[in-house]
Amino acid sequence: MPRTTDSPSPLGHMPGTSLHRQLFLVLRDEITRGIYAETGALPKEEALCERFGVSRITVRRALSELAALGLVERRHGLGTFVRADAPAGRSSPSLSVIDSLRKTALETDVEVLEVATAVPPADIAQLLLLAPGEQAVHALRLRSIKGTPVILTDAWVPAALGKRVSAAALRKQALYEILMAQGVKFGRVVQEITAQAADPAYAGWLRTEVGAPLLKLVRLMHDPESRPVQYITVYMSPERSRILMDISADTVNTLSAGQLVHDVPRG
Amino acid sequence: MPRTTDSPSPLGHMPGTSLHRQLFLVLRDEITRGIYAETGALPKEEALCERFGVSRITVRRALSELAALGLVERRHGLGTFVRADAPAGRSSPSLSVIDSLRKTALETDVEVLEVATAVPPADIAQLLLLAPGEQAVHALRLRSIKGTPVILTDAWVPAALGKRVSAAALRKQALYEILMAQGVKFGRVVQEITAQAADPAYAGWLRTEVGAPLLKLVRLMHDPESRPVQYITVYMSPERSRILMDISADTVNTLSAGQLVHDVPRG
Repeated sequence: MPRTTDSPSPLGHMPGTSLHRQLFLVLRDEITRGIYAETGALPKEEALCERFGVSRITVRRALSELAALGLVERRHGLGTFVRADAPAGRSSPSLSVIDSLRKTALETDVEVLEVATAVPPADIAQLLLLAPGEQAVHALRLRSIKGTPVILTDAWVPAALGKRVSAAALRKQALYEILMAQGVKFGRVVQEITAQAADPAYAGWLRTEVGAPLLKLVRLMHDPESRPVQYITVYMSPERSRILMDISADTVNTLSAGQLVHDVPRG
Repeated sequence: MPRTTDSPSPLGHMPGTSLHRQLFLVLRDEITRGIYAETGALPKEEALCERFGVSRITVRRALSELAALGLVERRHGLGTFVRADAPAGRSSPSLSVIDSLRKTALETDVEVLEVATAVPPADIAQLLLLAPGEQAVHALRLRSIKGTPVILTDAWVPAALGKRVSAAALRKQALYEILMAQGVKFGRVVQEITAQAADPAYAGWLRTEVGAPLLKLVRLMHDPESRPVQYITVYMSPERSRILMDISADTVNTLSAGQLVHDVPRG
């Protein structure tokens, strides 16, 4: 539901040659969301010029990039159309989708990209209550479904708990299963959901574009005594993945169902 | 924690003149996430060339754009540094942050951008069980904290329930409060969390860049008889907003705490 009413153009301060890249990212996102699925037709070039406040040349460059990726085809004199083999729009978040999910288990293939003992970044070390310079076990895994990468998982476990965490073990079991087999019990989980722009490494693993939005989920897992046992970050492309929840109205916007938090100076 | 090991460069197929824009989006995202907060120094130009697989000219253009936005300053012979007045990194998702949130209420100012009766997009009409061509009440609101926009809310309510929904009413009450005052009761809520690239309108309202990632939350709210009463989409910039949850380990990855769903052909 793109709108142009009353919106100031935020493009003004950008150098001209990069505008087509911004258009490309937005249009690509809209195509994979199924915005143009009904007729298959993208808006006319003039309409795109007006919506983005850019020249015809800029619009044409963005459309050429989409065509080069195989997402659209340009029909002479007719306009630009989403290709029939472009990724389809996904099902809406309805009760029936939720109910059908209860029956399907998540079956993914795991590739272990890295298992190493290392000093974690300062913020993660602090959350895991590690001493300065103290090492932890780091595991980087990529999960795929039928060859399509869907989840990149970046996990840190305190060294004392991570002794049995190896690439061979992670190919057979989930990290929490390895920890549980050692006697670790799980209690409260603090979960944060946010988004970030894909850097080259993540874009490569998740097969998306550098700069494209990624959905990011961070979990700090504790044992029943509230000691941190695992810090895990999950990256997914919104082109293929999303988070679905079935909640009651009285828990919406609470800390069990997800509270919106804004980091804004309160003056 | 950017990594370059084993990552194929996805930049290869992009026209050269737009590469700096992709760097710009990723670096801007990292600066606002506080990745460089410890020393304030960005990586050297050579390191950025290597990480993104681009030329020195491209790196310099991206850094110039960041400087033009006031996010970094380039010190001759020393490198590029995050400016002291750039947005600060936010607190980590810890138990203490969660506990302090219980005490703070969300106080926002609301601006009503649009209230109108209209035919909703086909997917929303279907979810609200409307007949083809049937109208609904559409409300678009922007919530701010101390003048900083944080939440854009796009809501649809079936016309029969939306009679008292007006701009004046929405300035005084939340939409669900107006509906409850009419006797509407709430039951199950299907919630979807995803991310998308900001188009010009949303980037303008939420004061971010076109193409920058937005966090997107969709809620389909039902009454106790499972009839849909409200479809609401919430857009936030991850620079300022995130979703925090406090859950128990045994509900992680369930439909009450958020199940990861992948739309991949299972072939």
